[in-house]
Amino acid sequence: MAHIIDGAAIAAAIRDEVKADVARFREAHGIAPGLATVLIGDNPASAAYVRNKRKTCEELGLTSFGYELPATTTQEEAVALVRELAGRPDVHGILVQLPLPAHINDQVVLAAVPLEKDVDGFHPSNMGRLGLKGREPSFAPCTPKGCIELLDRSGIPIAGKRAVVLGRSAIVGLPVALMLLARDATVTVCHSKTSDLAGVTRQADILIAAIGKPRFVTADMVKPGCIVIDVGINRVPDSTRKSGSRLVGDVDYEGVSPVAGAITPVPGGVGPMTIAMLMQNTLIAARRLVGE
Amino acid sequence: MAHIIDGAAIAAAIRDEVKADVARFREAHGIAPGLATVLIGDNPASAAYVRNKRKTCEELGLTSFGYELPATTTQEEAVALVRELAGRPDVHGILVQLPLPAHINDQVVLAAVPLEKDVDGFHPSNMGRLGLKGREPSFAPCTPKGCIELLDRSGIPIAGKRAVVLGRSAIVGLPVALMLLARDATVTVCHSKTSDLAGVTRQADILIAAIGKPRFVTADMVKPGCIVIDVGINRVPDSTRKSGSRLVGDVDYEGVSPVAGAITPVPGGVGPMTIAMLMQNTLIAARRLVGE
Repeated sequence: MAHIIDGAAIAAAIRDEVKADVARFREAHGIAPGLATVLIGDNPASAAYVRNKRKTCEELGLTSFGYELPATTTQEEAVALVRELAGRPDVHGILVQLPLPAHINDQVVLAAVPLEKDVDGFHPSNMGRLGLKGREPSFAPCTPKGCIELLDRSGIPIAGKRAVVLGRSAIVGLPVALMLLARDATVTVCHSKTSDLAGVTRQADILIAAIGKPRFVTADMVKPGCIVIDVGINRVPDSTRKSGSRLVGDVDYEGVSPVAGAITPVPGGVGPMTIAMLMQNTLIAARRLVGE
Repeated sequence: MAHIIDGAAIAAAIRDEVKADVARFREAHGIAPGLATVLIGDNPASAAYVRNKRKTCEELGLTSFGYELPATTTQEEAVALVRELAGRPDVHGILVQLPLPAHINDQVVLAAVPLEKDVDGFHPSNMGRLGLKGREPSFAPCTPKGCIELLDRSGIPIAGKRAVVLGRSAIVGLPVALMLLARDATVTVCHSKTSDLAGVTRQADILIAAIGKPRFVTADMVKPGCIVIDVGINRVPDSTRKSGSRLVGDVDYEGVSPVAGAITPVPGGVGPMTIAMLMQNTLIAARRLVGE
């Protein structure tokens, strides 16, 4: 049976480290690292994510500044808010919660975030630098960074390994592929147009699943001993639960566990890492500002 | 024997198309598409490249503005020149010849090029958008774009194919990998840390060699029928030549030709495409400015 990579425990350890460092930072500089969250519109999932991020800020001693704008907000208004936050000395990180309403070009709003406050790592320039050795971005995006951190803290080597990334989204698939490449993995990106998908994924020493299809990766797609990182969070019906549903990943956990060398569960795998990385990035942003 | 992809002929056809379009553009708008070249320092190879680009501008009817600065130029001076060119209405494209002297951060200078004049495609934001479907960059970098154009004009399908890119440079390897991905290939990037390299390259339906090692790719590394695009330009000793040397690619052309389905020669393959794509990009920049 696969070693279970306990993302909940690893994320808790990182939160503890950040909390201790934040306390020391406040002591030394008389100010807390500050994260501004920008939420536009009424997407309930986005609202829940932002709530969670703000709650974690409070738990770890960071200051959280919440901005909630209506769905009718114009692109110019969104950019103006980001510019205002860019100029504030108590805001060290700016998070624009995606997706934005369809009438707003997210690339324009994200490009208004100054690189030194881009704790979400979604500024187009930061994306462009991800795969470039020696030109690393100011911040890496949180979920992909969380995947790499899970590997590192589990003692799993990356350099020279065959890594296969399933999915090529701007949020996870593409940046995690570039980060694995910068860490000297031989990286293959698969997607809906890939032929003989199982043949490709079976070559993976490290398999990252980020396609948003419940239990898509089955045992026959995984080489024995493969390290499986499951980024998917999908809600499926489950009549045995009171709520009538439960969360599953992009990987068929029950089927793949006996084959894999290590695997992340869902929930409790990559999920908790995203916020932990955001907190770490905000602390780093604050430290850089004071020249630490 | 492999079909020989005649880059010289394809590039000549593109130059003819651009020349005709430039004549029509001048007729319609009373101004020629203008390309400013910025050359800093005394690198003879860079000087030759720039000379070639300016000569091609003249041949096709584009206006070329040449700026040559000494190796002692400061980063601030380089940025100031780029900013001045950014504001000029007769300059539609700005090309900063790389590499820059070591004391200048190329990312800072490249970021000063406005996206609409970034005909070389090296602005960090353009790099970041290369792999993102629906967020395509304002311009793709010329050599990678030339590789894709060679495939397209040879009627070689990309979608669903296994593409292997050998090399991960910011200039060629990484951007061509991202462009192949955006065209729905299943893309693997290999490099000096890849284990069992021949095993990986033998899976390629399309193999792009961009590592700068003379005749590195040998017949045993290529699947029968593979499409081989050779980006390498390496000078090797050759006592039978008057000059004492000749140019070879990253592929052992004599050995690989009998195995490959199609192959680009060196010289006369990818090489001539780079300048043709630069001319095309400059024309596109001028057209966009007038709203064509």
